[in-house]
Amino acid sequence: MKVLNLSDYKIYLGDIWTEVNTFLSENTFSKIAVIVDENTAKNCLPILKTNVVDHSFNLIEISSGEKNKTITTCESIWQRMMEHSLDRHSLVINLGGGVIGDMGGFCAATFKRGMTFVQIPTTLLAQVDASIGGKLGIDFNEVKNAIGLFQNPKAVFIDPVFLKTLPYKELRSGFAEIIKHGLIADAKLWNDIVAVEDIYGFEMEDLIYRSLLVKQSIVEQDPFEKGIRKVLNFGHTIGHALESVALNSNKPLLHGEAIAIGMLCEAWLSQKENDLSVTDLKAIGDYVLGLYGKRMLSEADFPQYLDIMSQDKKNQGKTINFTYIKALGASIFDCTSTEDSILDSLCYYNSLTV
Amino acid sequence: MKVLNLSDYKIYLGDIWTEVNTFLSENTFSKIAVIVDENTAKNCLPILKTNVVDHSFNLIEISSGEKNKTITTCESIWQRMMEHSLDRHSLVINLGGGVIGDMGGFCAATFKRGMTFVQIPTTLLAQVDASIGGKLGIDFNEVKNAIGLFQNPKAVFIDPVFLKTLPYKELRSGFAEIIKHGLIADAKLWNDIVAVEDIYGFEMEDLIYRSLLVKQSIVEQDPFEKGIRKVLNFGHTIGHALESVALNSNKPLLHGEAIAIGMLCEAWLSQKENDLSVTDLKAIGDYVLGLYGKRMLSEADFPQYLDIMSQDKKNQGKTINFTYIKALGASIFDCTSTEDSILDSLCYYNSLTV
Repeated sequence: MKVLNLSDYKIYLGDIWTEVNTFLSENTFSKIAVIVDENTAKNCLPILKTNVVDHSFNLIEISSGEKNKTITTCESIWQRMMEHSLDRHSLVINLGGGVIGDMGGFCAATFKRGMTFVQIPTTLLAQVDASIGGKLGIDFNEVKNAIGLFQNPKAVFIDPVFLKTLPYKELRSGFAEIIKHGLIADAKLWNDIVAVEDIYGFEMEDLIYRSLLVKQSIVEQDPFEKGIRKVLNFGHTIGHALESVALNSNKPLLHGEAIAIGMLCEAWLSQKENDLSVTDLKAIGDYVLGLYGKRMLSEADFPQYLDIMSQDKKNQGKTINFTYIKALGASIFDCTSTEDSILDSLCYYNSLTV
Repeated sequence: MKVLNLSDYKIYLGDIWTEVNTFLSENTFSKIAVIVDENTAKNCLPILKTNVVDHSFNLIEISSGEKNKTITTCESIWQRMMEHSLDRHSLVINLGGGVIGDMGGFCAATFKRGMTFVQIPTTLLAQVDASIGGKLGIDFNEVKNAIGLFQNPKAVFIDPVFLKTLPYKELRSGFAEIIKHGLIADAKLWNDIVAVEDIYGFEMEDLIYRSLLVKQSIVEQDPFEKGIRKVLNFGHTIGHALESVALNSNKPLLHGEAIAIGMLCEAWLSQKENDLSVTDLKAIGDYVLGLYGKRMLSEADFPQYLDIMSQDKKNQGKTINFTYIKALGASIFDCTSTEDSILDSLCYYNSLTV
């Protein structure tokens, strides 16, 4: 069992069940609700129920997927919270991926002006990304995470056992955030990442831990994303736009798949407009494309990408804000680029060959 | 100009415009949006525009009234915020009563995970009640303020000049909170309140100030309503239920009108189940009924009142939580009562004669 001590909560990583049971027994909650989707209801809830036998749960099940991360789903969660007579002394356990963590956390933090909640992230993405930083929220008007707030959970319990419930594509999607953490801040982590031959058979605990240490260090320096925390946005300015557009197409992209493309485009911008060497750009391209493959971006969507990027929360006024990679394991935030360069970076991606 | 220094913001009370202009000039906001309803657009916005000439505003107008304090209205506010390209460096000015302050604050605090907002309360109710405590939110499923969060504004500017824009009933509604502040914590304030002969012609600044001092002292002891802050709930357990039911009837009650009835019922409970003397109960009854008049409560609604009370945020599990008045100017929280007694208190109210 590894434990990360954050400013006001702990992350438990490993075989979590002793810690979960201790947590539930040490607190007196009036009720305990578990939020799941149809996947975690089937694959993860039985693991929870097998390991936590002394407590009963009210179940709130929602439909899985980013397309359901909406205010409409929040309304149905709040409705169920009322039906279960949850109050301010109740606990919400978010058992699932990023959608459940972000949206379930948002609903808990706003129901009756705030209930206690804990996260049990079940996807690699949620384990390495959503478990630090207190970002809660939903999409709105096709803008990702447009509505939300910053609030930390009472605790996060990460058990790699849940990763065995994931399809390969989901695992690979989460792995993109580990890659990002290596690229922006930890050259040694990057080197160990590229040495992994098969992520599906790989025991992830150590990479998760080191990835969390990177994120912890950055978020603690800047909890509200005024400065250095923006480096975590590497790959996300373009990646979010791709993901948003794909969400409404018949070829949706997983978050990490979109971020992988975003990182390739933003690495190209880093080389063109900052200090990244051509050699390092090629190393990133080879590795990321090798893992994620290639997906042509339709030029017909380019204007829409720019539109969405101009709505990004990190922008100030009209400029579009980027984080660039200066070298493998080093980054710089508050860079800006022109629309032409951004479009060129998309064309660069389209020109790559696996 | 009176200034109250709260933990992380200031309340300016009096002729506010020098302070408003200084605030806007000292900060560099990317945009400034003003949220109004059709009443404050007509009666209050011109006052703002006359006094603040060096800044331009994006206007967001919503429909007035508690019945519009919904997630649907939030969606339209967020939509307008997007259309105006507001970002995290923008400012939202909530120019209006409690609905605008609570809902506009909630929308600002959750748009892109949080924008700066200030309150310019234009009703007496909002000036004495909503300007301290950081309670933001909306109604949901006919439960008042069921969804929301605690967050303080960057500043509050209270100008009694706005009270001249109010109908008598609105002014009287806000006065209920001043009465409450006297009853729960300040006998001298109560005595000065009952001495006011005509609230409409009365210069309110001093009573507002003293009322704010009561609220400030209580909220600062207990920002998240874990303990003593619950005394501010006097009159509200029953009052909120009356208000919620009335909201969907053809005879809506203003918030303060509902709280006035709630205070009478809860004063009766205070006498029956706690230390309030029969003499003090009568003094409260005479004064409050004299000011607000009488409105028979239909017994057909009683079960619904109990239902709504059982959803109150201050409850823990199944009991219904009350604050009682021990004497004029003294109160006690975390009292509980039975359904029978609550129903008796409603009948007591119905039995009163003006």
